[in-house]
Amino acid sequence: MDGQYVAGVDIGGQTSKIGIVDAAGNVLARKVIRTDSYGKDAEAYMDALAGALGECAADAGLSWKAVGAVGIGAPNGNYYTGHIVRAVNIAWASGREVPLAEGLSRRLGGIPVTLTNDANAAAMGEMVYGAARNYRDFIMITLGTGVGSGIVVDGKLVYGHDGNAGELGHVIVDRNSTRSCGCGRKGCLETYCSATGVARTAKEWIETTDEPSLLRDMDELSSKTVYDAAKQGDAMAIRVLRYTAEILGRSLADFVTFSAPEAIVIFGGLARAWEFLYEPMLDEMNANLMPVWRGKIKIVRSGLKESDAAILGASALAWK
Amino acid sequence: MDGQYVAGVDIGGQTSKIGIVDAAGNVLARKVIRTDSYGKDAEAYMDALAGALGECAADAGLSWKAVGAVGIGAPNGNYYTGHIVRAVNIAWASGREVPLAEGLSRRLGGIPVTLTNDANAAAMGEMVYGAARNYRDFIMITLGTGVGSGIVVDGKLVYGHDGNAGELGHVIVDRNSTRSCGCGRKGCLETYCSATGVARTAKEWIETTDEPSLLRDMDELSSKTVYDAAKQGDAMAIRVLRYTAEILGRSLADFVTFSAPEAIVIFGGLARAWEFLYEPMLDEMNANLMPVWRGKIKIVRSGLKESDAAILGASALAWK
Repeated sequence: MDGQYVAGVDIGGQTSKIGIVDAAGNVLARKVIRTDSYGKDAEAYMDALAGALGECAADAGLSWKAVGAVGIGAPNGNYYTGHIVRAVNIAWASGREVPLAEGLSRRLGGIPVTLTNDANAAAMGEMVYGAARNYRDFIMITLGTGVGSGIVVDGKLVYGHDGNAGELGHVIVDRNSTRSCGCGRKGCLETYCSATGVARTAKEWIETTDEPSLLRDMDELSSKTVYDAAKQGDAMAIRVLRYTAEILGRSLADFVTFSAPEAIVIFGGLARAWEFLYEPMLDEMNANLMPVWRGKIKIVRSGLKESDAAILGASALAWK
Repeated sequence: MDGQYVAGVDIGGQTSKIGIVDAAGNVLARKVIRTDSYGKDAEAYMDALAGALGECAADAGLSWKAVGAVGIGAPNGNYYTGHIVRAVNIAWASGREVPLAEGLSRRLGGIPVTLTNDANAAAMGEMVYGAARNYRDFIMITLGTGVGSGIVVDGKLVYGHDGNAGELGHVIVDRNSTRSCGCGRKGCLETYCSATGVARTAKEWIETTDEPSLLRDMDELSSKTVYDAAKQGDAMAIRVLRYTAEILGRSLADFVTFSAPEAIVIFGGLARAWEFLYEPMLDEMNANLMPVWRGKIKIVRSGLKESDAAILGASALAWK
């Protein structure tokens, strides 16, 4: 890492967000390209990403030489290999491995490119710039379309022997569950506590009860419409969020037995419903914690600005 | 650590085992003292332990000066503070904190004394001398009176922010369970998969079925008598062990999502029933693993000689 600036890239299923970041965590320039316009052609995507990184540096008034490294967070991004491994929501990485770090580095004159999965990137961002700046042991939980996690032990991300550690969204919370998960199994935490999981719970409750609820009139059931209804005082919507938070809280109690984190940091779109989630999540975690930890583990909301969080998280990877 | 020898101490509820160990892992001399003969007097216990350490060194033909450090594994031993923290099975440490490392070091002329909990000590021993010598990422599960665990990430033990990490025996495996755990909660892994848990399962099945079984004639139901009956072909005993192994296997699948270990190492008295436990444990782990790990995570039995395992584990702590 030679430069005083790095680039952060957050690859999502639809768009890829690029930012040039200085050492203080200021995003000097931003750019967005489509992730989903290249069909199965990973080479074409990498060409476009490399081009956009150059343009973004220029927008920041920098020559590309001033940018010393690139950090990337992506679904199923593997830190050890630099590959995106069978990411179901990205056509050019579905069912195959794409050597993204190497391919991008080659296009950028050989500068270091570091890849990890999106939740690990978020945890890094939180540690360098966010709510976890003072923690050496914490667990980051991202509540988005899925449930991701990044685990930090003694100041370092846990990658595991194969780079795939930190898949806490796929702990089984109910072995009798009928909820199918994208991973091919049933009853994963993700099927309950993601944005999608919230919508599933709401749909189930609407279909299996007669209780009046604003949710019945929604064109679309999503975590956003559930949250909107809860803000309007809708009893069922509030209970859906509480149910979600309680399941998450119980799982957090189990997670604590593993790494005894000082705090759990919650991140992602569903965290916007914080006023409905926080108390039941904390209460249920404490009710299920071993006595030695009861009342001692913090649950905090991400400290990163949501618009920049992913870019900062990815850029934090590049700072060594 | 100045000497070429260290002392390992394994503190159990009834006895404390002491050994003088060389750098190759040879136990040069052994000594056992009672843990439970000192009532609530922790000072008297530490006096006795310090004396026994000196005698053990002499038995090995060494002056105490040749022994550079002491490593201790003990229930609820805290690595950071060097205290034994409210160990329910040790009268002099029940309901209070005993500054064991400091107290012992003072009695031994100030040499370094390192303390951790017994499962972490076992994991250290396995990494330095045993089945985990080639793994930088593994999870040690100890199946004894309780279920303990030691988690190694990237070659280092996970202690957590407070030194209490690695309590996987207290993950809740059944939230509707009526089985009370020593930790004050219900349904912990330990209530099913410890030696005690095996006896509980056998007792429950005997009381709630009419199935003929050798277990009905046993004076005492213990994991040993269940294992003995299984070896004689008793169908219920075999099923009790399989049930135990399956619950453990499912939990192991969840543990893998955390740290993506290369292997799980199983240790402790119940591991003697390996021929009945291994296959159902492995099969059930694989059936519950995410596809990315299925068939790839090893389950291995401890590679330490059982009689020396605890001493070696504790001594491994002392080598820095």
